[in-house]
Amino acid sequence: MDKAMSPKITVELLRQLRQAMKNCKYFSEPIQAYIVPSGDAHQSEYIAPCDCRREFICGFNGSAGTAIVTEQHAAMWTDGRYFLQASQQMDNNWTLMKMGLKETPTQEDWLISVLPENSKVGVDPWIIAADQWTNMSKALTSAGHSLVTVQDNLIDVVWEERPSRPSTPLITLGHEYTGLSWQDKITALRAKMTERKITWFVATALDEIAWLFNLRGSDIEYNPVFFAYAIVGFNTIRLFVDLKRLADPAVRAHLQLDSPSKPELNIQTFPYESVYTELQAICAALGPKDKIWICDKASCALTQVIPKAHRSPIPYTPLCLAKAVKNATEIQGMKMAHIKDAVALCELFAWLEKEIPKGTVTEISAADKAEELRSQQKDFVGLSFPTISSVGPNGAIIHYRPLPETNRTLSMNEVYLIDSGAQYTDGTTDVTRTMHFGTPSAFEKECFTYVLKGHIAVSAAVFPNGTKGHLLDSFARAALWESGLDYLHGTGHGVGCFLNVHEGPCGISYKTFADEPLEAGMIVSDEPGYYEDGSFGIRLENVVLVVPAKTKHNYRNRGSLTFEPLTLVPIQVKMMNTELLTQKERDWVNEYHRRCREVVGAELEKQGRKEALAWLMRETQPIV
Amino acid sequence: MDKAMSPKITVELLRQLRQAMKNCKYFSEPIQAYIVPSGDAHQSEYIAPCDCRREFICGFNGSAGTAIVTEQHAAMWTDGRYFLQASQQMDNNWTLMKMGLKETPTQEDWLISVLPENSKVGVDPWIIAADQWTNMSKALTSAGHSLVTVQDNLIDVVWEERPSRPSTPLITLGHEYTGLSWQDKITALRAKMTERKITWFVATALDEIAWLFNLRGSDIEYNPVFFAYAIVGFNTIRLFVDLKRLADPAVRAHLQLDSPSKPELNIQTFPYESVYTELQAICAALGPKDKIWICDKASCALTQVIPKAHRSPIPYTPLCLAKAVKNATEIQGMKMAHIKDAVALCELFAWLEKEIPKGTVTEISAADKAEELRSQQKDFVGLSFPTISSVGPNGAIIHYRPLPETNRTLSMNEVYLIDSGAQYTDGTTDVTRTMHFGTPSAFEKECFTYVLKGHIAVSAAVFPNGTKGHLLDSFARAALWESGLDYLHGTGHGVGCFLNVHEGPCGISYKTFADEPLEAGMIVSDEPGYYEDGSFGIRLENVVLVVPAKTKHNYRNRGSLTFEPLTLVPIQVKMMNTELLTQKERDWVNEYHRRCREVVGAELEKQGRKEALAWLMRETQPIV
Repeated sequence: MDKAMSPKITVELLRQLRQAMKNCKYFSEPIQAYIVPSGDAHQSEYIAPCDCRREFICGFNGSAGTAIVTEQHAAMWTDGRYFLQASQQMDNNWTLMKMGLKETPTQEDWLISVLPENSKVGVDPWIIAADQWTNMSKALTSAGHSLVTVQDNLIDVVWEERPSRPSTPLITLGHEYTGLSWQDKITALRAKMTERKITWFVATALDEIAWLFNLRGSDIEYNPVFFAYAIVGFNTIRLFVDLKRLADPAVRAHLQLDSPSKPELNIQTFPYESVYTELQAICAALGPKDKIWICDKASCALTQVIPKAHRSPIPYTPLCLAKAVKNATEIQGMKMAHIKDAVALCELFAWLEKEIPKGTVTEISAADKAEELRSQQKDFVGLSFPTISSVGPNGAIIHYRPLPETNRTLSMNEVYLIDSGAQYTDGTTDVTRTMHFGTPSAFEKECFTYVLKGHIAVSAAVFPNGTKGHLLDSFARAALWESGLDYLHGTGHGVGCFLNVHEGPCGISYKTFADEPLEAGMIVSDEPGYYEDGSFGIRLENVVLVVPAKTKHNYRNRGSLTFEPLTLVPIQVKMMNTELLTQKERDWVNEYHRRCREVVGAELEKQGRKEALAWLMRETQPIV
Repeated sequence: MDKAMSPKITVELLRQLRQAMKNCKYFSEPIQAYIVPSGDAHQSEYIAPCDCRREFICGFNGSAGTAIVTEQHAAMWTDGRYFLQASQQMDNNWTLMKMGLKETPTQEDWLISVLPENSKVGVDPWIIAADQWTNMSKALTSAGHSLVTVQDNLIDVVWEERPSRPSTPLITLGHEYTGLSWQDKITALRAKMTERKITWFVATALDEIAWLFNLRGSDIEYNPVFFAYAIVGFNTIRLFVDLKRLADPAVRAHLQLDSPSKPELNIQTFPYESVYTELQAICAALGPKDKIWICDKASCALTQVIPKAHRSPIPYTPLCLAKAVKNATEIQGMKMAHIKDAVALCELFAWLEKEIPKGTVTEISAADKAEELRSQQKDFVGLSFPTISSVGPNGAIIHYRPLPETNRTLSMNEVYLIDSGAQYTDGTTDVTRTMHFGTPSAFEKECFTYVLKGHIAVSAAVFPNGTKGHLLDSFARAALWESGLDYLHGTGHGVGCFLNVHEGPCGISYKTFADEPLEAGMIVSDEPGYYEDGSFGIRLENVVLVVPAKTKHNYRNRGSLTFEPLTLVPIQVKMMNTELLTQKERDWVNEYHRRCREVVGAELEKQGRKEALAWLMRETQPIV
């Protein structure tokens, strides 16, 4: 695998791509620039190897980034999490565009500044989201250029050994995991459609389709999803998927393919690729008032099949919203998954404490050990994202992933940061802990304590019903800001239930403005950090559940919300400068550690994991 | 004046308006709905009497609100500041649409729900902003309706005694007040135009034009502006204004109308009304690459004169941005204005304390006294907005203005809230204090203390350079939220320098997402509140200056900012439950009061205002 932290040499690839950009086999006129977004045709965040086109062309393999190649230039935009990593993975042919910094131009502004007059900018319409297309097209047009669709993907043209699209077996999930049958979900969706006078709904996001049908797959590493589309009308349900996958009798029975209970719950199945022509056929038969719901983040290709007058684009689909609010069964599952996950992490930390002094534990072996311990837990399916196991300066690379050539040995002298999580059949986890196994410096402790203060400020925040998550972001930063510090990433993301570890429509970020209000039952992460380039990284992450809060008053009967931590893993007291904590913050830490003892302690006891239990008891002693 | 808190009877007016909506004298086909926005042709917040069309048709006279009349319905949208007031001023023909509540439909959604198929919705293109037009038009079109321009304003058609447009004398401001000549401002504007490859700039906002030319007027009450447009190219400056106003030799000399220093600084003057035809002429002569800057909040009428290919709409003009960052002269002027203002308020509060027990002071007489005391200060021009002087339940009407029929007597038993400010030639003020002259209840003190905590949290916040004001809004609410309380308005707005008391492009609000980052030299208000309907209102407002902050660290050399209060009026200690304050908050209060003593005390001494000085010294004793 070409995932090394040494730069990928791209001279020859860029030459070939630029040749393709001039090759009239692909379009009527040559294009002067080609955009390579990072997503797939479903705008997935994590993608299958066959879809890693941006990585292929520039070498940078982070989860977010867009490459643009012109005749003279090649540039790649990514956010603060990836500045270091991208600069290490790309060669000199590429300019790194650091998003979020004042001096960094937008893709549009940059294109306008480098392109000759009347240029054509090409993009694969399946890979670019409809809303991105619209914004980009508007900006380019107003500067005298044009954005054009290129049906053949030009990266695929120059990619000789491109892997094929995966088609893994499907897993069916019963009521004990989902709490709601797919039939009930379809019925609820149709009720929303009726309410908004919508006749068709096109589902393109892979996690929404998996959630809707209570199915899971493993087409994309870490994400239990499968390549599919779905179109739902009032009398039909059309599922587009590699038909070979539906041969499994369990799947056939689950979907009632051979004996639908009611005609309107009859699922018609079609090959994955035929979604385009089927949607065309549906559109050809629309009545004048018919409206089709499609997410404005769906592909430009599929969106443009729907005539504008019939298109009703939405920032978040009703499935996305319904999926975000977990039902009682899902919440129970998420709680169980987090207890099991805490057991594995307590074991890991007890083990690390013993092993690190021997000098034999590396970032990779620690990550492997974490996976091994998690895999011993019931219903373990796999990791929910690549483990970030980082020591010292590697900790400052926000989405670092240890590789043989960067692998550092854990020591008593450096801060260790581990951000990891797993998929269990009952839930998804994502937790970050930062620890020191020797004696942390005063500055490391100071920064850790500011991050902890931010974590607590969000976790303990009480806010009115209807509040959007982005309004809480500054709470996480206030203590850092006061000392002139900050971190260049958001504070939290939605977390799926045995689904994607990142999901919409809510989050906690200074960047997110289109987020939906937080509601009881939603699950998000709370993960402020601090990164000292070349020295260390700190992040503290819990997954938290939005719950109703009891307050002294109740203005306009709006009701209040707060968070309940689902993650129950001790936060290292050794890293805290407890003098910087207020009494309220100390109380929070003590109450949190009391719950870790109570809940995870009982499970460790039950599983007979004595060393981990002893570690837990010691690490959760109250601070004064 | 028809500003009573009893509802305006609108049966006959609505009948006439609906008749006009069907009268083909005004358009080719009848319209099914007519929108009446609250602004004027310059999208001013405060407007001249001739432009109070929304008030005329529905009776509601708050500063923000949009009325829509259909054949069957009449509805008016306004925000949380005005819910009570609007419900009292409108009769049963009108439905109050409470913006910001979940159940309230947007104007677009409401129109779509009530209109018959294929309806035409009319609006005066001079009164609606271009961005509002675009959004409304898009929404209506997608639902099968259309938004159409109606050149004759239909409110004017039914408004028999409509006042004429004011044309007050112009005031010229010298360098000692502005710190920058209009010639330098034009040169800086042209530099921005060069930088962004812009050939023309159209100024439509009245405060921007006043700022650009260092001129003031009094066409709009409380706002020292004058009706005008300006168009700036590289070789010409065109000013559109009632030409009679330019007869004054001082104005002629100031603008160098008779002897321009350089050809490119020659101001050509045109009648106010000719801006439309002049802009048409400019557009007719444009080269293919010429671009015109116009604010996307400018009128739809003027925006649409510019062919789309030549239009470069911007959310905030370069004048708006330049005006927001005050120079050293302006900052010095603002400081002086706030000291004079504090002198007047200290006198007012000392006087109230003496007079209230006699039972003779009313909301109106207190407001009059405040104006009288301010008018004794040097360079006083007038008030900067109508004084909100409110007792007990009236305090819960957020933008209350006392009227004879609502006028309450100040007493020892009720909370008194006064939000007032003035225009001085050297600066603009805006300050709110909430006081009790007897013994406040525990609940009143509790709420006041939460509001104070919020005020301090914003005022003392330290944040990185480049932070947008909306990221600070939640700091103002955290203490209220924790107890289940909140307030339904933003936390702060930009403040002009001897200009509008509300100005863009920065502010502190959960609603503002298009705000520009805060910069040293910007001036905003910090004014959280709490309103208990039917009982009392609390608000604490200081005008604060953005200043660099010294921090222990300096992440990525970004630098940090904080606020320095310009308002220096004691905050009533009697209203505080000091036990709810942290030590840091107590320190803030004591340091603030120390500065009030030092700065305002010296001025009171100088002006020989002994009683006020004694009051100040007593009210600023340190709390423990």
